[in-house]
Amino acid sequence: MNIKELEQEVKGLIREIPDFPVKGILFKDIMPVLRNPQVCNKIIRTFESVVRDWNGEVIAGIESRGFFFGPSVAFNLGLPFVPVRKVGKLPGDTVAVSYNLEYGTATIEMHSDAIQPGQRVIIHDDLLATGGTAEAAAQLVQKLGGQVAGFLFLVELDFLAGREILAKYSENIFSIVHYEK
Amino acid sequence: MNIKELEQEVKGLIREIPDFPVKGILFKDIMPVLRNPQVCNKIIRTFESVVRDWNGEVIAGIESRGFFFGPSVAFNLGLPFVPVRKVGKLPGDTVAVSYNLEYGTATIEMHSDAIQPGQRVIIHDDLLATGGTAEAAAQLVQKLGGQVAGFLFLVELDFLAGREILAKYSENIFSIVHYEK
Repeated sequence: MNIKELEQEVKGLIREIPDFPVKGILFKDIMPVLRNPQVCNKIIRTFESVVRDWNGEVIAGIESRGFFFGPSVAFNLGLPFVPVRKVGKLPGDTVAVSYNLEYGTATIEMHSDAIQPGQRVIIHDDLLATGGTAEAAAQLVQKLGGQVAGFLFLVELDFLAGREILAKYSENIFSIVHYEK
Repeated sequence: MNIKELEQEVKGLIREIPDFPVKGILFKDIMPVLRNPQVCNKIIRTFESVVRDWNGEVIAGIESRGFFFGPSVAFNLGLPFVPVRKVGKLPGDTVAVSYNLEYGTATIEMHSDAIQPGQRVIIHDDLLATGGTAEAAAQLVQKLGGQVAGFLFLVELDFLAGREILAKYSENIFSIVHYEK
Protein backbone atom coordinates (compact mmCIF):
# COMPACT_ATOMS: atom_id res chain seq x y z
CA MET A 1 0.00 0.00 0.00
CA ASN A 2 1.37 3.40 -0.97
CA ILE A 3 0.57 5.68 1.99
CA LYS A 4 1.17 8.89 0.05
CA GLU A 5 -1.31 7.84 -2.62
CA LEU A 6 -3.85 6.84 0.03
CA GLU A 7 -3.32 10.20 1.76
CA GLN A 8 -4.18 12.01 -1.46
CA GLU A 9 -7.24 9.82 -2.04
CA VAL A 10 -8.54 10.50 1.48
CA LYS A 11 -7.76 14.23 1.24
CA GLY A 12 -9.78 14.34 -1.97
CA LEU A 13 -12.82 13.07 -0.03
CA ILE A 14 -12.51 15.18 3.15
CA ARG A 15 -14.76 18.26 3.18
CA GLU A 16 -13.63 21.41 4.98
CA ILE A 17 -16.44 23.18 6.86
CA PRO A 18 -15.64 26.68 8.19
CA ASP A 19 -16.67 27.74 11.72
CA PHE A 20 -17.75 24.29 12.94
CA PRO A 21 -18.38 23.44 15.75
CA VAL A 22 -17.38 27.01 16.76
CA LYS A 23 -16.21 30.15 14.92
CA GLY A 24 -12.59 30.04 13.77
CA ILE A 25 -12.34 26.22 13.43
CA LEU A 26 -11.98 24.85 9.89
CA PHE A 27 -13.58 21.44 10.51
CA LYS A 28 -12.34 18.40 8.52
CA ASP A 29 -15.45 16.36 7.76
CA ILE A 30 -14.58 12.71 7.15
CA MET A 31 -18.19 11.62 6.53
CA PRO A 32 -17.74 11.54 2.72
CA VAL A 33 -14.83 9.12 3.22
CA LEU A 34 -17.25 6.65 4.83
CA ARG A 35 -19.30 6.65 1.64
CA ASN A 36 -16.33 5.24 -0.28
CA PRO A 37 -15.87 1.61 0.83
CA GLN A 38 -12.83 1.04 -1.42
CA VAL A 39 -10.92 3.85 0.28
CA CYS A 40 -12.19 2.76 3.71
CA ASN A 41 -10.88 -0.74 3.13
CA LYS A 42 -7.45 0.67 2.21
CA ILE A 43 -7.51 2.74 5.42
CA ILE A 44 -8.44 -0.34 7.47
CA ARG A 45 -5.71 -2.50 5.82
CA THR A 46 -3.14 0.23 6.51
CA PHE A 47 -4.19 0.52 10.16
CA GLU A 48 -4.06 -3.28 10.54
CA SER A 49 -0.51 -3.35 9.29
CA VAL A 50 0.54 -0.62 11.74
CA VAL A 51 -1.17 -2.33 14.70
CA ARG A 52 0.63 -5.57 13.81
CA ASP A 53 3.99 -3.75 13.66
CA TRP A 54 3.37 -2.32 17.12
CA ASN A 55 2.19 -5.66 18.58
CA GLY A 56 -1.10 -4.09 19.64
CA GLU A 57 -3.33 -6.31 21.78
CA VAL A 58 -6.39 -4.06 22.25
CA ILE A 59 -7.86 -1.21 20.18
CA ALA A 60 -9.34 1.61 22.27
CA GLY A 61 -11.47 3.86 20.05
CA ILE A 62 -12.58 7.32 21.12
CA GLU A 63 -16.29 8.27 20.83
CA SER A 64 -17.78 8.66 18.30
CA ARG A 65 -15.59 9.01 15.23
CA GLY A 66 -13.04 6.56 16.62
CA PHE A 67 -15.78 3.92 16.24
CA PHE A 68 -15.88 4.09 12.42
CA PHE A 69 -12.61 2.25 11.76
CA GLY A 70 -11.50 1.01 15.20
CA PRO A 71 -13.84 -1.99 15.47
CA SER A 72 -13.07 -3.18 11.89
CA VAL A 73 -9.34 -3.08 12.58
CA ALA A 74 -9.74 -4.85 15.93
CA PHE A 75 -12.04 -7.64 14.73
CA ASN A 76 -10.08 -8.26 11.51
CA LEU A 77 -6.97 -8.77 13.64
CA GLY A 78 -8.85 -10.86 16.23
CA LEU A 79 -8.37 -8.22 18.94
CA PRO A 80 -10.82 -6.76 21.49
CA PHE A 81 -12.32 -3.32 20.86
CA VAL A 82 -12.77 -1.03 23.86
CA PRO A 83 -14.75 2.21 23.57
CA VAL A 84 -13.58 5.40 25.26
CA ARG A 85 -16.79 7.35 25.88
CA LYS A 86 -17.97 10.72 27.13
CA VAL A 87 -18.86 10.78 30.82
CA GLY A 88 -22.18 9.15 31.74
CA LYS A 89 -22.48 6.96 28.63
CA LEU A 90 -20.94 3.75 29.96
CA PRO A 91 -23.07 1.82 32.48
CA GLY A 92 -21.44 0.13 35.48
CA ASP A 93 -17.94 0.69 36.94
CA THR A 94 -15.73 3.15 35.06
CA VAL A 95 -12.55 5.18 35.41
CA ALA A 96 -12.60 8.84 34.28
CA VAL A 97 -10.14 11.55 33.20
CA SER A 98 -10.96 15.24 32.63
CA TYR A 99 -9.00 17.39 30.19
CA ASN A 100 -8.91 20.61 28.18
CA LEU A 101 -10.15 20.37 24.62
CA GLU A 102 -9.42 22.52 21.57
CA TYR A 103 -12.76 24.17 22.31
CA GLY A 104 -13.99 23.69 25.91
CA THR A 105 -13.37 20.94 28.48
CA ALA A 106 -14.53 17.34 28.70
CA THR A 107 -14.42 14.11 30.71
CA ILE A 108 -13.99 10.67 29.17
CA GLU A 109 -14.38 7.20 30.65
CA MET A 110 -13.53 3.56 30.11
CA HIS A 111 -15.00 0.51 31.78
CA SER A 112 -12.86 -0.47 34.80
CA ASP A 113 -12.52 -4.03 33.51
CA ALA A 114 -11.84 -3.06 29.87
CA ILE A 115 -8.06 -3.51 29.95
CA GLN A 116 -5.98 -6.29 31.50
CA PRO A 117 -2.81 -5.16 33.33
CA GLY A 118 0.16 -5.10 30.94
CA GLN A 119 -1.93 -5.24 27.75
CA ARG A 120 -0.56 -3.28 24.80
CA VAL A 121 -3.32 -0.81 23.91
CA ILE A 122 -3.59 1.14 20.67
CA ILE A 123 -5.48 4.41 21.06
CA HIS A 124 -7.47 5.38 17.98
CA ASP A 125 -9.42 8.45 16.92
CA ASP A 126 -10.33 9.97 13.57
CA LEU A 127 -8.32 13.15 14.08
CA LEU A 128 -5.32 14.36 16.08
CA ALA A 129 -5.59 18.09 16.82
CA THR A 130 -4.06 19.41 20.06
CA GLY A 131 -3.90 15.88 21.48
CA GLY A 132 -6.01 16.56 24.60
CA THR A 133 -8.51 13.75 24.06
CA ALA A 134 -5.92 11.16 23.05
CA GLU A 135 -3.74 12.12 26.03
CA ALA A 136 -6.71 11.66 28.37
CA ALA A 137 -7.34 8.25 26.77
CA ALA A 138 -3.68 7.34 27.36
CA GLN A 139 -4.08 8.30 31.01
CA LEU A 140 -7.18 6.08 31.24
CA VAL A 141 -5.21 3.15 29.80
CA GLN A 142 -2.41 3.72 32.32
CA LYS A 143 -4.91 4.00 35.22
CA LEU A 144 -6.09 0.50 34.32
CA GLY A 145 -2.51 -0.84 34.22
CA GLY A 146 -2.34 -1.06 30.42
CA GLN A 147 0.64 -0.03 28.26
CA VAL A 148 0.09 2.60 25.59
CA ALA A 149 1.46 0.78 22.52
CA GLY A 150 0.70 3.58 20.06
CA PHE A 151 -1.68 6.18 18.67
CA LEU A 152 -3.49 5.73 15.38
CA PHE A 153 -5.33 8.52 13.53
CA LEU A 154 -6.86 9.01 10.14
CA VAL A 155 -6.04 12.74 10.07
CA GLU A 156 -3.38 14.78 11.87
CA LEU A 157 -3.33 18.57 12.06
CA ASP A 158 0.46 18.86 12.19
CA PHE A 159 0.36 22.61 12.93
CA LEU A 160 -1.33 21.98 16.30
CA ALA A 161 1.60 19.79 17.42
CA GLY A 162 -0.56 17.24 19.29
CA ARG A 163 2.16 14.69 18.51
CA GLU A 164 4.52 16.41 20.98
CA ILE A 165 2.02 15.85 23.82
CA LEU A 166 1.46 12.19 22.91
CA ALA A 167 5.18 11.37 22.61
CA LYS A 168 5.27 11.33 26.45
CA TYR A 169 3.10 8.20 26.32
CA SER A 170 4.40 6.34 23.26
CA GLU A 171 6.80 7.05 20.40
CA ASN A 172 4.42 5.18 18.10
CA ILE A 173 2.16 7.77 16.46
CA PHE A 174 0.74 7.20 12.98
CA SER A 175 -1.67 9.21 10.82
CA ILE A 176 -2.55 8.58 7.19
CA VAL A 177 -3.43 12.19 6.32
CA HIS A 178 -1.43 15.24 7.39
CA TYR A 179 -2.35 18.91 7.17
CA GLU A 180 0.65 21.17 7.65
CA LYS A 181 -1.36 24.36 7.93
CA MET B 1 -24.07 -19.95 10.86
CA ASN B 2 -26.51 -21.16 13.52
CA ILE B 3 -28.35 -18.04 14.67
CA LYS B 4 -29.74 -19.65 17.85
CA GLU B 5 -26.23 -20.66 18.93
CA LEU B 6 -24.91 -17.18 18.17
CA GLU B 7 -27.81 -15.66 20.13
CA GLN B 8 -26.83 -17.72 23.18
CA GLU B 9 -23.17 -16.78 22.80
CA VAL B 10 -24.01 -13.07 22.60
CA LYS B 11 -26.48 -13.30 25.51
CA GLY B 12 -23.75 -14.88 27.59
CA LEU B 13 -21.61 -11.77 27.05
CA ILE B 14 -24.26 -9.05 27.52
CA ARG B 15 -24.27 -7.48 30.98
CA GLU B 16 -27.53 -6.27 32.54
CA ILE B 17 -27.17 -3.00 34.47
CA PRO B 18 -30.19 -1.95 36.57
CA ASP B 19 -31.43 1.67 36.61
CA PHE B 20 -29.29 2.92 33.69
CA PRO B 21 -29.53 5.51 32.21
CA VAL B 22 -32.57 6.19 34.42
CA LYS B 23 -34.35 4.37 37.27
CA GLY B 24 -36.50 1.45 36.13
CA ILE B 25 -34.50 0.63 32.97
CA LEU B 26 -32.59 -2.68 32.97
CA PHE B 27 -29.85 -1.67 30.51
CA LYS B 28 -28.34 -4.30 28.20
CA ASP B 29 -24.62 -3.49 28.04
CA ILE B 30 -23.05 -4.86 24.85
CA MET B 31 -19.54 -3.55 25.62
CA PRO B 32 -18.28 -6.98 26.79
CA VAL B 33 -19.34 -8.37 23.39
CA LEU B 34 -16.87 -5.98 21.72
CA ARG B 35 -14.05 -7.55 23.71
CA ASN B 36 -14.70 -10.90 22.03
CA PRO B 37 -13.57 -10.58 18.40
CA GLN B 38 -14.58 -14.16 17.49
CA VAL B 39 -18.19 -13.48 18.45
CA CYS B 40 -18.08 -10.02 16.81
CA ASN B 41 -16.91 -11.58 13.55
CA LYS B 42 -19.83 -14.05 13.68
CA ILE B 43 -22.21 -11.13 14.26
CA ILE B 44 -20.70 -9.24 11.30
CA ARG B 45 -20.88 -12.30 8.98
CA THR B 46 -24.53 -12.82 9.98
CA PHE B 47 -25.40 -9.16 9.32
CA GLU B 48 -23.61 -9.32 5.94
CA SER B 49 -25.70 -12.28 4.89
CA VAL B 50 -28.94 -10.50 5.86
CA VAL B 51 -27.95 -7.28 4.04
CA ARG B 52 -27.18 -9.34 0.92
CA ASP B 53 -30.58 -11.07 1.14
CA TRP B 54 -32.29 -7.68 1.33
CA ASN B 55 -30.22 -6.19 -1.53
CA GLY B 56 -29.06 -3.37 0.75
CA GLU B 57 -27.10 -0.61 -1.00
CA VAL B 58 -26.23 1.66 1.97
CA ILE B 59 -25.84 1.01 5.70
CA ALA B 60 -27.12 3.84 7.91
CA GLY B 61 -25.86 3.38 11.48
CA ILE B 62 -27.33 5.22 14.43
CA GLU B 63 -24.98 7.06 16.85
CA SER B 64 -23.05 5.76 18.70
CA ARG B 65 -23.61 2.06 19.22
CA GLY B 66 -24.74 1.61 15.62
CA PHE B 67 -21.16 2.49 14.67
CA PHE B 68 -19.60 -0.62 16.25
CA PHE B 69 -20.77 -3.12 13.61
CA GLY B 70 -22.32 -0.98 10.87
CA PRO B 71 -19.09 0.20 9.21
CA SER B 72 -17.56 -3.32 9.21
CA VAL B 73 -20.65 -4.74 7.52
CA ALA B 74 -20.77 -1.92 4.97
CA PHE B 75 -17.08 -1.97 4.02
CA ASN B 76 -16.88 -5.78 3.88
CA LEU B 77 -19.78 -5.72 1.41
CA GLY B 78 -18.32 -2.76 -0.54
CA LEU B 79 -21.20 -0.48 0.51
CA PRO B 80 -21.22 3.12 1.79
CA PHE B 81 -21.69 3.77 5.51
CA VAL B 82 -23.81 6.76 6.52
CA PRO B 83 -23.98 7.92 10.14
CA VAL B 84 -27.24 9.03 11.72
CA ARG B 85 -26.18 11.45 14.43
CA LYS B 86 -27.60 13.49 17.30
CA VAL B 87 -28.50 17.05 16.35
CA GLY B 88 -25.55 19.44 15.99
CA LYS B 89 -22.89 16.77 15.43
CA LEU B 90 -22.84 16.75 11.61
CA PRO B 91 -21.28 19.80 9.95
CA GLY B 92 -22.79 21.25 6.77
CA ASP B 93 -26.26 20.65 5.30
CA THR B 94 -28.44 18.14 7.14
CA VAL B 95 -32.02 16.94 7.42
CA ALA B 96 -33.50 16.40 10.92
CA VAL B 97 -36.33 14.45 12.58
CA SER B 98 -37.46 14.80 16.22
CA TYR B 99 -39.09 11.93 18.09
CA ASN B 100 -40.07 10.54 21.49
CA LEU B 101 -37.55 8.22 23.09
CA GLU B 102 -38.03 5.48 25.70
CA TYR B 103 -36.79 8.08 28.22
CA GLY B 104 -37.09 11.70 26.98
CA THR B 105 -37.09 13.21 23.47
CA ALA B 106 -34.37 13.64 20.85
CA THR B 107 -33.53 14.92 17.38
CA ILE B 108 -31.36 13.05 14.88
CA GLU B 109 -29.81 14.16 11.60
CA MET B 110 -28.27 12.85 8.39
CA HIS B 111 -26.23 14.74 5.81
CA SER B 112 -28.51 16.00 3.03
CA ASP B 113 -26.32 14.37 0.38
CA ALA B 114 -25.85 11.08 2.26
CA ILE B 115 -28.46 9.07 0.30
CA GLN B 116 -29.14 8.96 -3.42
CA PRO B 117 -32.84 8.89 -4.45
CA GLY B 118 -34.09 5.31 -4.73
CA GLN B 119 -31.15 3.76 -2.85
CA ARG B 120 -32.01 0.75 -0.68
CA VAL B 121 -30.94 1.73 2.83
CA ILE B 122 -30.47 -0.63 5.76
CA ILE B 123 -30.98 1.05 9.13
CA HIS B 124 -28.78 -0.36 11.87
CA ASP B 125 -28.54 0.11 15.62
CA ASP B 126 -27.32 -2.03 18.49
CA LEU B 127 -30.73 -2.36 20.15
CA LEU B 128 -34.41 -2.17 19.21
CA ALA B 129 -36.51 -1.03 22.18
CA THR B 130 -39.68 0.99 21.49
CA GLY B 131 -38.49 1.73 17.94
CA GLY B 132 -38.57 5.53 18.23
CA THR B 133 -35.00 6.15 17.09
CA ALA B 134 -35.10 3.64 14.24
CA GLU B 135 -38.44 5.06 13.07
CA ALA B 136 -36.97 8.57 13.03
CA ALA B 137 -34.01 7.22 11.02
CA ALA B 138 -36.47 5.66 8.55
CA GLN B 139 -38.18 9.04 8.19
CA LEU B 140 -34.78 10.66 7.50
CA VAL B 141 -34.09 8.10 4.77
CA GLN B 142 -37.48 8.76 3.20
CA LYS B 143 -36.97 12.55 3.40
CA LEU B 144 -33.85 12.07 1.27
CA GLY B 145 -35.74 9.94 -1.25
CA GLY B 146 -34.21 6.63 -0.16
CA GLN B 147 -36.06 3.34 0.29
CA VAL B 148 -35.97 1.66 3.70
CA ALA B 149 -34.75 -1.82 2.73
CA GLY B 150 -34.70 -3.18 6.27
CA PHE B 151 -33.77 -2.81 9.93
CA LEU B 152 -30.84 -4.63 11.49
CA PHE B 153 -30.23 -4.91 15.25
CA LEU B 154 -27.97 -6.87 17.53
CA VAL B 155 -30.57 -6.98 20.32
CA GLU B 156 -34.35 -6.69 20.30
CA LEU B 157 -36.51 -6.19 23.40
CA ASP B 158 -39.51 -8.07 22.04
CA PHE B 159 -41.77 -7.03 24.96
CA LEU B 160 -41.54 -3.36 23.89
CA ALA B 161 -42.99 -4.22 20.46
CA GLY B 162 -40.80 -1.76 18.52
CA ARG B 163 -41.10 -4.13 15.57
CA GLU B 164 -44.77 -3.16 15.14
CA ILE B 165 -43.79 0.49 14.66
CA LEU B 166 -41.05 -0.33 12.15
CA ALA B 167 -43.23 -2.67 10.06
CA LYS B 168 -44.84 0.48 8.59
CA TYR B 169 -41.50 1.23 6.89
CA SER B 170 -40.23 -2.23 5.93
CA GLU B 171 -41.21 -5.83 6.58
CA ASN B 172 -37.51 -6.68 6.83
CA ILE B 173 -36.55 -6.56 10.51
CA PHE B 174 -33.78 -8.77 11.87
CA SER B 175 -32.20 -9.08 15.32
CA ILE B 176 -29.72 -11.71 16.49
CA VAL B 177 -30.66 -11.58 20.16
CA HIS B 178 -34.21 -11.45 21.53
CA TYR B 179 -35.40 -10.76 25.06
CA GLU B 180 -39.02 -11.75 25.55
CA LYS B 181 -39.35 -10.09 28.97
